[in-house]
Amino acid sequence: MTAQPVLIRGQWRAAQATGTFQAENPATGATLPEVYPVSSWADCDEALTAAAAASVELRRTPPARIGAFLRKMADRIEARAAAIIERAHIETGLPKSPRLTDAEMPRTLGQLRQAAAAAEDGSWALPTIDVKGGIRSYLAPLGPVCVFGPNNFPLAFNSCSGGDFVAAIAAGNPVIGKANSSHPGTTQMMAETALEALQETGLPLATVQLIYRTGHADGERLVSDPRVGATGYTGSRGAGLKLKEAADRAGKPIYLELSSVNPVVVLPGAIAERGDKLAEEFTGSCLMGTGQFCTNPGMVILLASEATEAFVTNVANRFNAAACGVLLSKSVAKSLASSIDGLKAAGAAVLAGGGPAEGTGYRYRNTLLRVSGQQFLANPHALQNEAFGNCSLFVVVKDASEAAALLDHLEGNLTGCVYSDTTGKDDALYDQLVPHLRPKVGRLLNDKMPTGVAVSPAMNHGGPFPATGHPGFTAVGIPAALRRFAMLECFDAVRPHRLPAALQNNNPSGCLWRLIDGVWTQGDVPA
Amino acid sequence: MTAQPVLIRGQWRAAQATGTFQAENPATGATLPEVYPVSSWADCDEALTAAAAASVELRRTPPARIGAFLRKMADRIEARAAAIIERAHIETGLPKSPRLTDAEMPRTLGQLRQAAAAAEDGSWALPTIDVKGGIRSYLAPLGPVCVFGPNNFPLAFNSCSGGDFVAAIAAGNPVIGKANSSHPGTTQMMAETALEALQETGLPLATVQLIYRTGHADGERLVSDPRVGATGYTGSRGAGLKLKEAADRAGKPIYLELSSVNPVVVLPGAIAERGDKLAEEFTGSCLMGTGQFCTNPGMVILLASEATEAFVTNVANRFNAAACGVLLSKSVAKSLASSIDGLKAAGAAVLAGGGPAEGTGYRYRNTLLRVSGQQFLANPHALQNEAFGNCSLFVVVKDASEAAALLDHLEGNLTGCVYSDTTGKDDALYDQLVPHLRPKVGRLLNDKMPTGVAVSPAMNHGGPFPATGHPGFTAVGIPAALRRFAMLECFDAVRPHRLPAALQNNNPSGCLWRLIDGVWTQGDVPA
Repeated sequence: MTAQPVLIRGQWRAAQATGTFQAENPATGATLPEVYPVSSWADCDEALTAAAAASVELRRTPPARIGAFLRKMADRIEARAAAIIERAHIETGLPKSPRLTDAEMPRTLGQLRQAAAAAEDGSWALPTIDVKGGIRSYLAPLGPVCVFGPNNFPLAFNSCSGGDFVAAIAAGNPVIGKANSSHPGTTQMMAETALEALQETGLPLATVQLIYRTGHADGERLVSDPRVGATGYTGSRGAGLKLKEAADRAGKPIYLELSSVNPVVVLPGAIAERGDKLAEEFTGSCLMGTGQFCTNPGMVILLASEATEAFVTNVANRFNAAACGVLLSKSVAKSLASSIDGLKAAGAAVLAGGGPAEGTGYRYRNTLLRVSGQQFLANPHALQNEAFGNCSLFVVVKDASEAAALLDHLEGNLTGCVYSDTTGKDDALYDQLVPHLRPKVGRLLNDKMPTGVAVSPAMNHGGPFPATGHPGFTAVGIPAALRRFAMLECFDAVRPHRLPAALQNNNPSGCLWRLIDGVWTQGDVPA
Repeated sequence: MTAQPVLIRGQWRAAQATGTFQAENPATGATLPEVYPVSSWADCDEALTAAAAASVELRRTPPARIGAFLRKMADRIEARAAAIIERAHIETGLPKSPRLTDAEMPRTLGQLRQAAAAAEDGSWALPTIDVKGGIRSYLAPLGPVCVFGPNNFPLAFNSCSGGDFVAAIAAGNPVIGKANSSHPGTTQMMAETALEALQETGLPLATVQLIYRTGHADGERLVSDPRVGATGYTGSRGAGLKLKEAADRAGKPIYLELSSVNPVVVLPGAIAERGDKLAEEFTGSCLMGTGQFCTNPGMVILLASEATEAFVTNVANRFNAAACGVLLSKSVAKSLASSIDGLKAAGAAVLAGGGPAEGTGYRYRNTLLRVSGQQFLANPHALQNEAFGNCSLFVVVKDASEAAALLDHLEGNLTGCVYSDTTGKDDALYDQLVPHLRPKVGRLLNDKMPTGVAVSPAMNHGGPFPATGHPGFTAVGIPAALRRFAMLECFDAVRPHRLPAALQNNNPSGCLWRLIDGVWTQGDVPA
């Protein structure tokens, strides 16, 4: 069977392949018919050369055209939404509703359109003008961006339509998308809409290119190539750290989202006040999407008490009662089982689940584990290993100081939640514990589960290593996410007519926010 | 002789040393009498623990107190200025005037006071509020910062008083200063003023700590320690890349300033219009401070012509006629000689200098080298190796397309300059070449030498690797430089009274700039 074509330099053409692979339907375990190529370095090399040329062209392209492309692409995806959703459903096992149709697709379209607005507006670039000093600077595109998409958001974090993709493009960079191997067909459809939109809006055709898979060594070579500007990667910690090492050695920025257990601290007053409601809320958040979210609440910290015991039993009963969803792939199922085995080996007791589930396809029983604070502190490394899927670890600590010690032992995480009594009874405990939690997490939540990640300008979907590779940046949220794919360009005594439009005396749109002599304004440079 | 004490946990105490070293007076080659310890890991470990505790305290400290500390420290340095300048002069050979007294000391005091204002104001943190979404975020301190200061700015980039120091402190982080081994006494005096100012303003005494030197392995362990937030390093490429590798592996941000040849393109119209003036300007910039600036113009690109030959001869004559300054240290002298030998071995012809200079202390003759564009393109790696000191390489290319090819082969640099005819005759050439230069440099200048680096909010003292480790950040310029030493903290549905002051509904000062629902304002969150 002929392998599917890659998209390079605006052409769908046969890959220069070193092998092939096929995706599976994880709900049935059946191999899907389409065959995809594993590209050789020759494909990467050609894509890089084409992207570098596109990058030069994009720098000369008015931001309005980049915005038009993103909007057009959103329209084209919307027009093909049913087919794309069908394909994503087959490749990932994620339900069409509630999920792909009513959550992820609208989010994907919204991100494309928000990114279009950010590109057109330009304020993301923080233009800064020192009038008297004759010095002006802003964030500018930095060159081709490689995007490695994760398995768990086939639309909204797809390497050819998702968060990193729209951020890189809106910042003015071409993208080389590396499909996630578990949904290559969905990615191909997204790249098809991109190429059509590029053709319609006249952007360089190599602004979006697609390779399905490469060998590991070629992936490392790709992210460290001199023609690359930066890389966005969301996926497993092992593969991500290899890419990071290669990119770091070459001095190429790489933004990673690796793993996170997303600690949830439930204070005693919250359990006393609304324990049953919390058990329901937690169970919903933890099992939604079969737990396959970067921000899944994988660890819950509870203070020992009778009420806590009742809460734990309540959640365990709910885990046992809930249906076991389909996992994204055979490798997710394998990794979940092995991670849970590791937690058990480190002393975790099984309160619910703990083994494979009945039913077709890749499934594992909803799993609730438990250790004491003392056990955790004796083995903090093994016990905070992420078990990606429908699993969580309850840590029952004896008192607040043991909770603080536990938080001090946490690695960096995307999120941290604290539930407390609504009338203030837990406030002293909150004040004691949050200073230990806050530096470990990118986003702190109160009385809210971490699984919703709004595309808000104030969002941080990021956090200290190893949740990500740099604690100063967010992967979700427009316009902040654009700033990852930029370099700071300064113009010192550059003649006025040679300045980029964003830094000239006259505000190019009347809407662009600029910091002029310490004042944020949408006005012109004062005469 | 007793070794000088280190400053750890607010105490000047004997180091737990593995050895000692002494500085030299580079103007005479004489060893200076003071003996400084090489700290063992025990000193680093104690400093890290104390810094981590100080970091927690600093997070609770009102920004006004941090500002007060920086101002007080500036006052104390000013009061001891004559003695500090005398010590820096002896340790570095840099002239008191023009330089230490009238340029570097005022700059150092100015930076401390600008950083104080930035800390008090808080707008550097880009507070961002999504009112309806209930999501708020800003940049917050990220923990102890290790600062490795360079040899060439004993005051303004001193690890205990300079650019990285003030940025880290103003962002709310404690600093562990690692003195530059060529001016330990100056660094000690700066740390003395810091401790006095800490005592006067009631900040945690471990906010500033000083170690003079460590073994290489301990340095790498220091920057990758879990207690560290980030590192600022300015110095040699070799040592910097080792630290970067260690920090990267641990996922700890490290901001490096490594090396840069700072290409200057002189277009034909500029030579025709004001060749003699340019020769004078270039010579002054290149030989100032014996060429020991990060932004020294180490490479000049010229288009072949008779006028260019005259310009080259003019500069060579000026290099021969100018006095040969003192170099900062024996190792700078050795490295300059070896770098120049490397350029000669790669084919560079010597137009002036090329060997050691007469006179006491460490000196090398003002050196002007030359290659053709063809030679450069045959050996671009060796011929863009920085020769730190009073040396520059002229590259005479045959035409604009050879110039463009040369620029395409450049690594990342801090600066790039283009001189052109003032009436527009060079504009077509400018437009042809700048797209090749712009992506390679952090700061683009017109008709101006790169050696002045104003402390401006719009400055970029940064650039693509290997000039620095990340192209998005600047080491000079307040408030932007503060953002290196911060993590993005998001608050999602956090109860109002638990928000940091900068993110509460009421603007805490009436002056803080915040991005509220897409609008930059100094106002409150609308009711």
